[in-house]
Amino acid sequence: MKDIRTKGFERLIRYDKALEETFKYVKKIGTEYISIENATGRVCAEDVISDINLPPFSRAAMDGYAVIAEDTFGASITNPLIFEVIDEMSIGEYKEIVLKRYQAVKIYTGCIMPKNATAVVKFEHTIPIDEKRIQVIKSVPPGKNVSLEGEDIRRGDLIVKKGEIINPYHVATLAGIGRRYLKVYKKPKVAIFSIGNELIEAGQKYIYGKIYDINSFALYSLAKNFGCEAIRKILPDNYDKIKNELINALNYYDIIVTTGATSVGKEDIMPLIVNELGKLLVHGISIRPGEPTGIGLINDKLIFLLPGFPVASIIGFLYIVRPVLEKMLDTCFPKLKIKGKLKRKVASELGRRDFVRVKIYKRNGEYEIEPIRLTGSGIISSLLKADGLLVVEENVEGYEENETVEVELITYNFHY
Amino acid sequence: MKDIRTKGFERLIRYDKALEETFKYVKKIGTEYISIENATGRVCAEDVISDINLPPFSRAAMDGYAVIAEDTFGASITNPLIFEVIDEMSIGEYKEIVLKRYQAVKIYTGCIMPKNATAVVKFEHTIPIDEKRIQVIKSVPPGKNVSLEGEDIRRGDLIVKKGEIINPYHVATLAGIGRRYLKVYKKPKVAIFSIGNELIEAGQKYIYGKIYDINSFALYSLAKNFGCEAIRKILPDNYDKIKNELINALNYYDIIVTTGATSVGKEDIMPLIVNELGKLLVHGISIRPGEPTGIGLINDKLIFLLPGFPVASIIGFLYIVRPVLEKMLDTCFPKLKIKGKLKRKVASELGRRDFVRVKIYKRNGEYEIEPIRLTGSGIISSLLKADGLLVVEENVEGYEENETVEVELITYNFHY
Repeated sequence: MKDIRTKGFERLIRYDKALEETFKYVKKIGTEYISIENATGRVCAEDVISDINLPPFSRAAMDGYAVIAEDTFGASITNPLIFEVIDEMSIGEYKEIVLKRYQAVKIYTGCIMPKNATAVVKFEHTIPIDEKRIQVIKSVPPGKNVSLEGEDIRRGDLIVKKGEIINPYHVATLAGIGRRYLKVYKKPKVAIFSIGNELIEAGQKYIYGKIYDINSFALYSLAKNFGCEAIRKILPDNYDKIKNELINALNYYDIIVTTGATSVGKEDIMPLIVNELGKLLVHGISIRPGEPTGIGLINDKLIFLLPGFPVASIIGFLYIVRPVLEKMLDTCFPKLKIKGKLKRKVASELGRRDFVRVKIYKRNGEYEIEPIRLTGSGIISSLLKADGLLVVEENVEGYEENETVEVELITYNFHY
Repeated sequence: MKDIRTKGFERLIRYDKALEETFKYVKKIGTEYISIENATGRVCAEDVISDINLPPFSRAAMDGYAVIAEDTFGASITNPLIFEVIDEMSIGEYKEIVLKRYQAVKIYTGCIMPKNATAVVKFEHTIPIDEKRIQVIKSVPPGKNVSLEGEDIRRGDLIVKKGEIINPYHVATLAGIGRRYLKVYKKPKVAIFSIGNELIEAGQKYIYGKIYDINSFALYSLAKNFGCEAIRKILPDNYDKIKNELINALNYYDIIVTTGATSVGKEDIMPLIVNELGKLLVHGISIRPGEPTGIGLINDKLIFLLPGFPVASIIGFLYIVRPVLEKMLDTCFPKLKIKGKLKRKVASELGRRDFVRVKIYKRNGEYEIEPIRLTGSGIISSLLKADGLLVVEENVEGYEENETVEVELITYNFHY
């Protein structure tokens, strides 16, 4: 029987120290230009300044007659004022028109205003006399029913900031100022490997003694959710096969994530492989779940050795890989948090950071946070049941029943 | 000069009545099978029941020795008990082993347990004597360091429900039970047309008097966010061109959304076209913004005539098209809501539903809701500034300053 290291980790590094060490090696990802209709969810890599006014000209905000506002002063149903209709505007059309006193131009919502017209009298407040003349029966102040050049956006306004995640309203505004192409950060390319001789792939016929791989599917889905390009693959506990796969993947992918074979047992060959190909930066982090997590550097690329237990690998992805992706992309992914009363005591240890799966209930308009009882880091169904994670930081020994705590949502299943 | 209808709508239909009328014609979209790694964000179209236990067998949850728990009773450092090591398990391997009294099998986390073994003694609690014998120095109760068959998921458990939007934790669990393919609703196919002679497309050189189209880009991005397949196109105010484009689009797309040309003015040809090709179900809805919205039916397909003003078209998409997509997909998109104190009075009219753009601030742990001052439905930058929408329902005349109101978030820009 082979020699085994049974003692566990001699020393665990604190979570923030592990991230700090890792951040030293994070390189910002490159940029590319894409068309704005594909930009939603991407991270903007430039400060976009408008180079036009929006609207680009003063325009009618109502169907009616464009006039010089002062000409209508005193108009009423008992004192109608007569205006000469000298022209009609069509939408999208530009005509060089200058109004004389008591002249009007028929106009429709969105039409460019004649140069010196300052207001629009609604059709309802006019009475046609003949083809060329109308009575105005209500006065309008300057600016009435007109949308002014630049009232929405002014030339020089900052529209989208570097690091913002583009949403449909950004796209709308970019379209409005005529910007079709946007500089965004490239999608980080992430290779995900589930390691273990016991693993078979969903869809394959079940073989007794084996288990269906969860991690590569889970982390692949999370990576895509965080805007990455990803692949996933199962690898056996074979030093050379894993090593060759990593060497290949490092040619193309920006970061590598593996799960399994990362503790200090006999089958835990990942730290050894990383140390052969590069350098293990961190091994053993004071978090629960996820203690055996390792982080390495090979050819200037980061490799994350996450534990084989599915919940631990997912939490590792959320709290170790995600912050690294944020650094690479110069952004901050939205993290929705909710405060509520804890329904049951949560114990932790000083110096360790715990991630506790919780359910959130809404009762009488208040949130109640209930830790999920079955907390083994292999229990994947606990994440189906969970709405969020309660992070118990290193300087906190735990929380008492009825304490108010803040939890981060892990899905949007929960309707607030 | 041509005749024009200037009177506005003779009658506006209530928002809920308009939706009710529309829902009569909504047909559920078809289904398809996809591989689970592509399923995140898609809507599940089946109840998935696990046909296996997870774990599929009882397995070691610790590296150590599998034993019959009772044999360890009384063991301590001062009273070590001797066990015969009869075999060693490898991960993923199945062996038919039956333990006799005081026999043990060397085992690693995740290994299948020998048939009648009931606990695992950690390596730390054993002292090797020779290749074949160990001393056990701590007793273990039955079940200790073992993860039991089916403790995560039992055969017959419901994993994902019809209508749920798949998230990475669903994918993880589906992978775990070996389900590679999932029945989901097809992506609704949405064709989006911005109508107006004044419109040019972002990226084109600016022509004075024209404006860059916002709506088709905005609604295209929203449609994609709601899991649709979409196209977008700008069309001129030309009856025959629009009619032909619609006839073509109806061959492929499930729903059509147009913006502009839908009021009761001279250029408002959309209602006429819909009435020629099919039937206008609703025209004029008592909402603000969005009053001129129309809804029609052509060849059993719904067509939405949204207003040309960008904010009105976006709110129309969110509050009229989105509920229809939810019906088609048999789901409910997540809608995040937040409660806070209103910082300024909001006025509305009885019988009308208002959608008020608001900013959300967090002060002293409480949310403050501030209506955005510039509220013209053409002001696209207002949606960049807004965090949410305050819906003022028909039976409410408005809200006073300091009233507590609930708003729906329109982006996740706001970090809670």
